[in-house]
Amino acid sequence: MPRYNLEYPKGDRNTVNRYKHQAVYSLTTIHTIINTSPVLHVSFQPSPSDPFPVILPMIGQMGSFSRPSASISDTLECYLHGYVSSRIMNLAREEEASSTAGLPVCIAAAKVDGLVLTLTPNSHNYNYRSAVLFGYATLVTSVEEKLWAMQLITNSVVPGRWPETRVPPNAGEMASTQIVRVRIDSGSAKVREGVPNDEKGDLADAGVTGRVWTGVVPLYEQFGAPVPGPYNEVAEVPEHVRSYVQEVNAASKEYAEVAARKDAPVKKAEAGDEEQ
Amino acid sequence: MPRYNLEYPKGDRNTVNRYKHQAVYSLTTIHTIINTSPVLHVSFQPSPSDPFPVILPMIGQMGSFSRPSASISDTLECYLHGYVSSRIMNLAREEEASSTAGLPVCIAAAKVDGLVLTLTPNSHNYNYRSAVLFGYATLVTSVEEKLWAMQLITNSVVPGRWPETRVPPNAGEMASTQIVRVRIDSGSAKVREGVPNDEKGDLADAGVTGRVWTGVVPLYEQFGAPVPGPYNEVAEVPEHVRSYVQEVNAASKEYAEVAARKDAPVKKAEAGDEEQ
Repeated sequence: MPRYNLEYPKGDRNTVNRYKHQAVYSLTTIHTIINTSPVLHVSFQPSPSDPFPVILPMIGQMGSFSRPSASISDTLECYLHGYVSSRIMNLAREEEASSTAGLPVCIAAAKVDGLVLTLTPNSHNYNYRSAVLFGYATLVTSVEEKLWAMQLITNSVVPGRWPETRVPPNAGEMASTQIVRVRIDSGSAKVREGVPNDEKGDLADAGVTGRVWTGVVPLYEQFGAPVPGPYNEVAEVPEHVRSYVQEVNAASKEYAEVAARKDAPVKKAEAGDEEQ
Repeated sequence: MPRYNLEYPKGDRNTVNRYKHQAVYSLTTIHTIINTSPVLHVSFQPSPSDPFPVILPMIGQMGSFSRPSASISDTLECYLHGYVSSRIMNLAREEEASSTAGLPVCIAAAKVDGLVLTLTPNSHNYNYRSAVLFGYATLVTSVEEKLWAMQLITNSVVPGRWPETRVPPNAGEMASTQIVRVRIDSGSAKVREGVPNDEKGDLADAGVTGRVWTGVVPLYEQFGAPVPGPYNEVAEVPEHVRSYVQEVNAASKEYAEVAARKDAPVKKAEAGDEEQ
């Protein structure tokens, strides 16, 4: 357990202005959402003259190269591996060359944990967990840090995968792999869990409550049985894959099922902050 | 079936430059990914002086108010319902007042359909579907269009849900609900499905193939059994919920299981375009 439950300070950029009762600034919560999302959405401005920001789906993990023993609750960097475009890599390189802080990026992740079906369309909701981080992206140039980050990211796909494959990467693989490190400036999360909420007027209307089914439909990701590929020669699915599949399946289902039965979030009165 | 398989024209902004063999410009593919994603990530530039773009998780659907019978393969608008922040709404309103085309936004969705575990960390991959759209956002001000879009979005959560709830929305609900319409400028998608791919050198190394398990772990979303809420008075889970849960569960699992067994994508030789 960390000594302190650190939070990102609330600033203009990361403060949640709507449904404040669902806002979370805890590093542990935010980093956990990021680290358990198989895909992150990363946004940046391609050029000052382009009005459109770009969003790329990327794989990433929070970690600390300088303090590898740091926990999820500590201040960490976000390491990104781009499998979609090299534009972000080029931009990060240009930014670095001009000795600025790096390319400003926004990183987002969201999971839906259940459909919250209520009496009226307006009170419908999801149980969900979402996180957003703002930070400055630069290219990782040190070989040691790149290798460490490749290992971090491979082991995020399946824990313990790295040593079970052909490693270390050869010179060509090292040269063609690019890793971006994002120094985090601020972040926030929003979490909704629990049973439906409805307005008093509808709850008091027997014609409505007698006709409309209300409840939560839990939603969670599941792994199917591993499917050996055409050139696989290893008879047994290895333990690191089997145990991960079982653990994640159980934990994902458990989270959504528990969230579906919790008390609804308590709303604090705020102008324009009705839950929906 | 549509008469033509329309595609978004390739321009500077939406052309996929990496893993081109996985790029798709078909409206059907792109719109289907968007419409089957429970959450979209929407990015925009909060102000010209802010270096950071912002990403918001939002609920959205492609549709056409002027041609409600339009199919998923037609040119459509994207309707967004914001449950996170009203910043995008204010910005869209300001843009509209200044009679520009609207607020430039990027909309993204991504699904992971399986973990592709290969001989080396570099050749690891996901089976996945991702889509991105660029467009101009404006606020929906007409009552008819807003009501139509609210219905479109509610029925995207569970088809047929709208008429099974207390409708129409009352005056307060109509006033507090804001819908953004995005006129699409361009878009693209990337889809990877199939068994693992590895490099010839590793495939020829019996020390590697004899030790490393290769294959795909399918990944898909599943709904749990619907959980009635504390003030529910309807004994049976209604048919529109039950049948949707069954259909989506079967289709999601089927897609990932089939994708895990397809031939690996054929790579066209491209500089810097190795699959990984």
